[in-house]
Amino acid sequence: YTLKQAWRSARKGDKKKATKLFVYAIRMAPRHPDVLNNYGEFLEHEDVIQAEYYYTAALSHYPYHQLALSNRKRTLPLVQQIDRDRLARIAAKRSKFYALPLTDPALIRMKRESYYQHVYHTVAIEGNTMNLQMTRAVIENRIAIGGKSVMEHNEIIGMDEALSYINTTLINKAGLLDVQDILQIHRRVYGFSDPFEAGNYRNSQVYIADHVPPPPGQVAAKMTEFDNWLKSSEARQLHPIELAALAHYKLVHIHPFVDGNGRTARLFMNCILMRAGFPPIIIRVHDRFHYYQYLSQANDGDVRPFMRFIADTTEFTLDEYLNYT
Amino acid sequence: YTLKQAWRSARKGDKKKATKLFVYAIRMAPRHPDVLNNYGEFLEHEDVIQAEYYYTAALSHYPYHQLALSNRKRTLPLVQQIDRDRLARIAAKRSKFYALPLTDPALIRMKRESYYQHVYHTVAIEGNTMNLQMTRAVIENRIAIGGKSVMEHNEIIGMDEALSYINTTLINKAGLLDVQDILQIHRRVYGFSDPFEAGNYRNSQVYIADHVPPPPGQVAAKMTEFDNWLKSSEARQLHPIELAALAHYKLVHIHPFVDGNGRTARLFMNCILMRAGFPPIIIRVHDRFHYYQYLSQANDGDVRPFMRFIADTTEFTLDEYLNYT
Ligand SMILES: Nc1ncnc2c1ncn2[C@@H]1O[C@H](COP(=O)(O)OP(=O)(O)OP(=O)(O)O)[C@@H](O)[C@H]1O
Ligand SMILES: Nc1ncnc2c1ncn2[C@@H]1O[C@H](COP(=O)(O)OP(=O)(O)OP(=O)(O)O)[C@@H](O)[C@H]1O
Ligand SMILES: [Mg+2]
Ligand SMILES: [Mg+2]
Repeated sequence: YTLKQAWRSARKGDKKKATKLFVYAIRMAPRHPDVLNNYGEFLEHEDVIQAEYYYTAALSHYPYHQLALSNRKRTLPLVQQIDRDRLARIAAKRSKFYALPLTDPALIRMKRESYYQHVYHTVAIEGNTMNLQMTRAVIENRIAIGGKSVMEHNEIIGMDEALSYINTTLINKAGLLDVQDILQIHRRVYGFSDPFEAGNYRNSQVYIADHVPPPPGQVAAKMTEFDNWLKSSEARQLHPIELAALAHYKLVHIHPFVDGNGRTARLFMNCILMRAGFPPIIIRVHDRFHYYQYLSQANDGDVRPFMRFIADTTEFTLDEYLNYT
Repeated sequence: YTLKQAWRSARKGDKKKATKLFVYAIRMAPRHPDVLNNYGEFLEHEDVIQAEYYYTAALSHYPYHQLALSNRKRTLPLVQQIDRDRLARIAAKRSKFYALPLTDPALIRMKRESYYQHVYHTVAIEGNTMNLQMTRAVIENRIAIGGKSVMEHNEIIGMDEALSYINTTLINKAGLLDVQDILQIHRRVYGFSDPFEAGNYRNSQVYIADHVPPPPGQVAAKMTEFDNWLKSSEARQLHPIELAALAHYKLVHIHPFVDGNGRTARLFMNCILMRAGFPPIIIRVHDRFHYYQYLSQANDGDVRPFMRFIADTTEFTLDEYLNYT
């Protein structure tokens, strides 16, 4: 019934109302293939990527849904082409970024600036209340900001230690990155917050929004599996942006640590990107809820929205470097 | 020559000048048995403990020095009696302390107060610039004090963590304290200052004033030796105050950690005292130089001045509790 109303609004040209009704219908029946497929059809003219996402979602629950099947068959190649084009465009920008003169004072200044922003945003996502100026001051002279908690300072110091470990060691490491490197990152990120938990797998159950990570007894095995995947030819054949995004997702899916998983995953992702010649990217605090939503969609079976988010963020970062230097 | 002048001043009744000249003579010839023995004789009427200390010092370099031998033979029993009396007096005060009603609000208040003082003094000795009020605030709410270094905060937090570990775990531990307990203390005391060094033996040489601790390659073996000593019947037969002081001394003599040895040794000493029914004692920042001097005298072969210092500090602490409750 809601679907009919929605289509009526759509035909009348009231897209806002139609959207509202479709979203409402999905909220009521989030796995109903007709609802998902209809919403995809509604979106297709405006946003084929979104449309194909909903066709895929419909099929993930009902793999033989005829309309969704034919809709997806039509749109998937278009979407794949868009995704390929995006990666090609980013590769071209990476080449330009690579060619920037390393001694250019503007580039050096920007890298320094983005270092502080990186730390600021990653701890802000996690709830740290220091602003960019405070973050910068703590990193520069390690003097405390009155009134802020000591642990907020230690989160910043942990990031600074982890980044300097990455820049001095992991970037130049011979051979592939592995789970040991992740433990080393976590030891630093989290060492000043809790020296006992840092670098160790959790031994309690955790819950993140709608996601329930594996029980503690399975963490070590899942991480070994993840380690094997990192070293697999499958992973090595991925585009670095896809690899980076997928590694991030897999890591927070397992959620191996009692806390600091997000910061560690973002750093590990940046390790992969930097080793492939990209600048480190910043997931901004104001993108927090989109970021969580893409991870949640990945849990529901489609990691592509998260990959596109990481690709877009990488492209945005490259654009910044290319425009301002 | 200086000795003759010193005695002349002494005979004239100018004790100040005499002392100055004796001290000067010792500074010039710190191992000369005549100088040490003469200074002992000069001191004997006023302070038999100090006198006997210098006779012993003379004999440590020249074991057959006749005058020092007979002087020591005369004074040693007196000194031993004084030391025994001190320990007996302290034991009596411990019994009174033990009998205090644990629910007395004044006692509870004093214990709380002395907790903050304990942390304040032990980090102040090490150079931390927080005052007592700041220390208390950091412990109570873990909010940062503007302008102080983040690491000064972390030293306080480390002490707080170590003390709560001691109070919840080590005080009630069945069996003897051992080197593993010391590592656990250090992990907490130093964990927030340097999570990588905390709980690990140093792997570099260190120097403390005039003392050169064993090279890093010997630390593990020395600590095993120390562990055996802690469990030996010899150690178990000592008075708890002697055991506590000796354990502290042996630990800072080995200096197993790159930093935080003093704080760890003071905590371990207090563990031993508390397990024997004493309150934890505070080595005050204004006693810092005496404290170092007694340790230095122990390095020169006589640990008794340090033991007396710990005994006096224990008695002082007991007196405070008994007077104010
Ligand atoms: N639905 C989800 N499924 C999987 N992972 C998620 C989901 N939502 C959020 N996450 C991840 O979990 C992280 C939070 O986990 P945790 O608290 O251990 O990390 P943190 O570093 O302390 O915090 P933060 O990542 O927020 O800075 C998020 O940053 C994100 O990366
Ligand atoms: N001459 C000495 N011989 C042996 N140990 C000494 C001597 N002088 C000082 N010490 C000990 O060494 C400690 C300092 O060592 P270290 O810096 O590792 O400890 P800390 O806890 O960081 O500092 P502190 O003990 O000053 O608070 C002193 O506190 C004291 O216990
Ligand atoms: Mg968290
Ligand atoms: Mg020190």
